[in-house]
Amino acid sequence: MELKEKEILRKKLDYAYAPYSKVKVAALAIDAKCNKFYGVNCENAAYPSGLCAERAALFSSVVHGIEMGTFKEIHIISNLNKILYPCGACRQVMSQFLENDAKIILHSTDFLEEKVFTMEEMLPGGVKSEDIIAK
Amino acid sequence: MELKEKEILRKKLDYAYAPYSKVKVAALAIDAKCNKFYGVNCENAAYPSGLCAERAALFSSVVHGIEMGTFKEIHIISNLNKILYPCGACRQVMSQFLENDAKIILHSTDFLEEKVFTMEEMLPGGVKSEDIIAK
Amino acid sequence: MELKEKEILRKKLDYAYAPYSKVKVAALAIDAKCNKFYGVNCENAAYPSGLCAERAALFSSVVHGIEMGTFKEIHIISNLNKILYPCGACRQVMSQFLENDAKIILHSTDFLEEKVFTMEEMLPGGVKSEDIIAK
Amino acid sequence: MELKEKEILRKKLDYAYAPYSKVKVAALAIDAKCNKFYGVNCENAAYPSGLCAERAALFSSVVHGIEMGTFKEIHIISNLNKILYPCGACRQVMSQFLENDAKIILHSTDFLEEKVFTMEEMLPGGVKSEDIIAK
Repeated sequence: MELKEKEILRKKLDYAYAPYSKVKVAALAIDAKCNKFYGVNCENAAYPSGLCAERAALFSSVVHGIEMGTFKEIHIISNLNKILYPCGACRQVMSQFLENDAKIILHSTDFLEEKVFTMEEMLPGGVKSEDIIAK
Repeated sequence: MELKEKEILRKKLDYAYAPYSKVKVAALAIDAKCNKFYGVNCENAAYPSGLCAERAALFSSVVHGIEMGTFKEIHIISNLNKILYPCGACRQVMSQFLENDAKIILHSTDFLEEKVFTMEEMLPGGVKSEDIIAK
Repeated sequence: MELKEKEILRKKLDYAYAPYSKVKVAALAIDAKCNKFYGVNCENAAYPSGLCAERAALFSSVVHGIEMGTFKEIHIISNLNKILYPCGACRQVMSQFLENDAKIILHSTDFLEEKVFTMEEMLPGGVKSEDIIAK
Repeated sequence: MELKEKEILRKKLDYAYAPYSKVKVAALAIDAKCNKFYGVNCENAAYPSGLCAERAALFSSVVHGIEMGTFKEIHIISNLNKILYPCGACRQVMSQFLENDAKIILHSTDFLEEKVFTMEEMLPGGVKSEDIIAK
């Protein structure tokens, strides 16, 4: 990820809507054809009805004709001055959108720290479409 | 909504990811500055982890700097050959993104039938940000 | 609802887990055979992964053999010193568990104020199982 | 887990409400004081509004005064004739209810196969309450 791209992603944090937790998160999902989709978290007065940045980015791609399992990278950053791990619900959705060998890249706010994971490391086992078709 | 726009919205149904229910839904949200955001439903092998079209459209707008309460119209269409009402979870999110006098417009697949609602008609009472701040 | 029952429901507010919003909610769902199921809200560090009181009450009944569409009353109370309306996501779930002519009863914390709604009033139209089967 | 308890858990599968996927799941969560809470999955015509068995079991405990972080075991079984892993959204909720060294025990329908995981194995990193308070 180039410096310019990092700046763009961090700038997206300004758009997150987090009046309750004050925790702002931004995500950038990149597919195999290098299409880029950004997302930020959006909280709701009824807390469970909000959505995280990672899912906002991924779900926004579907209407553009992106297919499941074609994302090769997702970058995540927050305003917490440290690396923030994605929640389990986002990991479930990621496992549907990401290639098997895709990278999940967690950045600290200043981009000085970085951790990289595979999907299998983030959600070992997981619930796959094969499980449900298997019935 | 012009004929051309209707065609575009209906065409989005092709992109919905609904391998389980086969029910495809598309939504178009338009804000006060006439910015347009499209969304389609996306199901998940773990059913509760999917997302509806209406929420996909609205949540996708946040990273583009759109503010809460500024949408004036949301159009909804499905492949069910009839008008499909939005689920309660989508109505909760709509109530956050839509202006007080915004229109929720439900279309049949062929656009021959149409029903228009206000937010208060769709989610009488509702949970508003004021409720939570009031505490 | 008798005084004693009101006291029991209000006492449940103590058990709600709401460290983030401080808004505590309790619900009591009663089915046609007078089975009673209580629920309180439970927040999560990842806000969208929490659950509201109304859904906690209803979902808890399924493992006890309760069938869909058999609840005749649901009572809702919060610590907000006023009537709190259920969120849209809870209304969606209620519409599945409640009888057509069931009552949704919203109470103020001191039980002095009370509002009663039908499901159709709370979620006009709605998404029903017939909609999906219809496909 | 004794044979009798296994029979009871498997019997709960009958109560799962899964008219769409036909995949029935049951869960048993046991806290440090040996309190037992059962749950089954409950699907909704609006798919994202359903709830999984694991979360149904855990959320049902809150109104009974159970505290976060006190569960020591959760057992999961389905009708799929194999071990089914919990979805990411359930893992997120489990991480809030389970002790650090709790066991997540996945059973095949006939109980002949069994896999045991820790929370850290199921949701490495995770989003914890400390992350959010840290802000």
